[in-house]
Amino acid sequence: MSPDATEQRVLEAIRERRELVNEALDEDVPMAEPERLYEASRYLLKAGGKRLRPTVSLLTAESLADVEPMSEDYRAFPTLSGDAIDVMVAAVGIEVIQSFTLIHDDIMDDDALRRGVPAVHKEYDTETAILAGDTLYAKAFELLTKTGSDPADGLEAVRRLATTCTQICEGQALDIEFEHRTGVLPDEYLQMVELKTAVLYGTAAAIPAVLMGADDDVVEALYQYGLKSGSAFQIQDDVLDLTVPSEKLGKQRGSDLVESKETIIFLHARQQGVDVDDLVEAETAEELTESEVESAVADLEAAGSIDFARDMAQDLTDQAKADLDVLPDNEARDLLRDIADYLITRGY
Amino acid sequence: MSPDATEQRVLEAIRERRELVNEALDEDVPMAEPERLYEASRYLLKAGGKRLRPTVSLLTAESLADVEPMSEDYRAFPTLSGDAIDVMVAAVGIEVIQSFTLIHDDIMDDDALRRGVPAVHKEYDTETAILAGDTLYAKAFELLTKTGSDPADGLEAVRRLATTCTQICEGQALDIEFEHRTGVLPDEYLQMVELKTAVLYGTAAAIPAVLMGADDDVVEALYQYGLKSGSAFQIQDDVLDLTVPSEKLGKQRGSDLVESKETIIFLHARQQGVDVDDLVEAETAEELTESEVESAVADLEAAGSIDFARDMAQDLTDQAKADLDVLPDNEARDLLRDIADYLITRGY
Repeated sequence: MSPDATEQRVLEAIRERRELVNEALDEDVPMAEPERLYEASRYLLKAGGKRLRPTVSLLTAESLADVEPMSEDYRAFPTLSGDAIDVMVAAVGIEVIQSFTLIHDDIMDDDALRRGVPAVHKEYDTETAILAGDTLYAKAFELLTKTGSDPADGLEAVRRLATTCTQICEGQALDIEFEHRTGVLPDEYLQMVELKTAVLYGTAAAIPAVLMGADDDVVEALYQYGLKSGSAFQIQDDVLDLTVPSEKLGKQRGSDLVESKETIIFLHARQQGVDVDDLVEAETAEELTESEVESAVADLEAAGSIDFARDMAQDLTDQAKADLDVLPDNEARDLLRDIADYLITRGY
Repeated sequence: MSPDATEQRVLEAIRERRELVNEALDEDVPMAEPERLYEASRYLLKAGGKRLRPTVSLLTAESLADVEPMSEDYRAFPTLSGDAIDVMVAAVGIEVIQSFTLIHDDIMDDDALRRGVPAVHKEYDTETAILAGDTLYAKAFELLTKTGSDPADGLEAVRRLATTCTQICEGQALDIEFEHRTGVLPDEYLQMVELKTAVLYGTAAAIPAVLMGADDDVVEALYQYGLKSGSAFQIQDDVLDLTVPSEKLGKQRGSDLVESKETIIFLHARQQGVDVDDLVEAETAEELTESEVESAVADLEAAGSIDFARDMAQDLTDQAKADLDVLPDNEARDLLRDIADYLITRGY
């Protein structure tokens, strides 16, 4: 299937579920008192987002149950033993955790914009943003207790989500640390990406299987699927920053070149003897010229660093797709494979 | 029993368990990588603290199991059906949540000191303090999945802790809101205190009962015990600020008079027509004179506001002690009663 056709299928799968996810978010994280706190907590959730992680959760459930996509009620979804659980509330819980991490990350990085709107700590204030994140954090765990699953499975899902949250914090701490440290190794960078970003993809894929009573090896394979495709996604992001024209990227191409950000590409290039810190003279994205970026990219390509990252993303994606072999052969599984491809073939 | 004898018994009960709780904290929240993150996460836990909430949890378990205090291994504690659970890991989880809220509260209030040492965001930095709190938050839920209880009870304990955390956030949001609002009503203040402080006492008392398989009415009564004695504790704090000599209080007596803090005493006085905002001329605690405080306290006493708060704390304490009637008559229950008394009779 061509990348374009894959992308269409993925965007359609996301689009079909997005409205249901948004409705569920509104039901499961309702307005409450104090008003300002709940407005701030819901602000980013309502500002949009693709709902990729909930879509992964819902597709995993559908493939595992071996049902036609969108044919079953996500609020009364069949487990492997024929009971009904609310798999949607678990998918919402994952999205709520994602939202909490974005709110706190934006405070830590002092990022002013998120999803095209002011970050929560800019729209409200830092105190409210800390509390909004903390509120969502608790809410996610509360939601995960409400799936109606076998309690042992529910408790295992909670344990997995808690471990995942700890790892996300560890990843964010490493990310901050790496900005102040030279000599970060590619493997360390990969570990950071895995912790900061990929584990939540892994958990989005694994939790429905846990709740539906799947065997441990199925749960683990699905976790690996999410972990690897999530890592590939992040690595591809670094490639795109250098290779996609600014107008398509929606920001200055090559902006990673002027930030203190260490991507896998720069780490590889440094190991090849490239003087990464002097690739461009510009010190801000505004000062960057296209010819400067071209020349820097040519140096990185000559060192094999961009191909190194591309190959790594592709390898991880291939592994992720192979992990899906534990699932029955059905349309939902095909869509999960498409999502893995899409995460590294999307143009921007 | 005289207040002094009560205090001795309570301090002894806390002291006896503190070392075990501290050991368990060290085991259950161990050092890990990234080092700086885990040092920051453990910093406040290691700086001390009475461990009052874990003590309440452990005593509740002992009374409910009707065993001699300190006679059973908290890591293999008998449930009502004769199974063994780790009640200590749940008690540690409560203390870890308390620590997380202190770290984030100190950022929000920009408080520089906590337990006699710099607050985490001062000792490290705000980014690390946000992350340290977030790490502890996840850790507490992870710990609560590890008690070995019946899974349905474990899931109910998680649900209760999650709801409690949401409420603590709501209470903190109200506290911040009240600083910028006039006309706060005494009932609103009480609700804030309940949410911000008392619910975690309630949950500390209730969770062991949940995990041990107690009936719902027992769980609810124990929750009410914690909720009411926790509220009484906070109200008594407001009384002490005005009535205990500075040297015993460890800070300037009457400092609430110069802060924008609205205590139940001031809210009552305002309802009685007292011009609360002009009780003293000083604008900082340093400027306060003893005679100014004396005169302000005399006005508040004349309005009946200090007695109003004292009576309310006493009423809540009496109710809290009555709630303990659901427990078997034993030494651990007597100690829980003593703790309720201690929370409002402690001199400072």
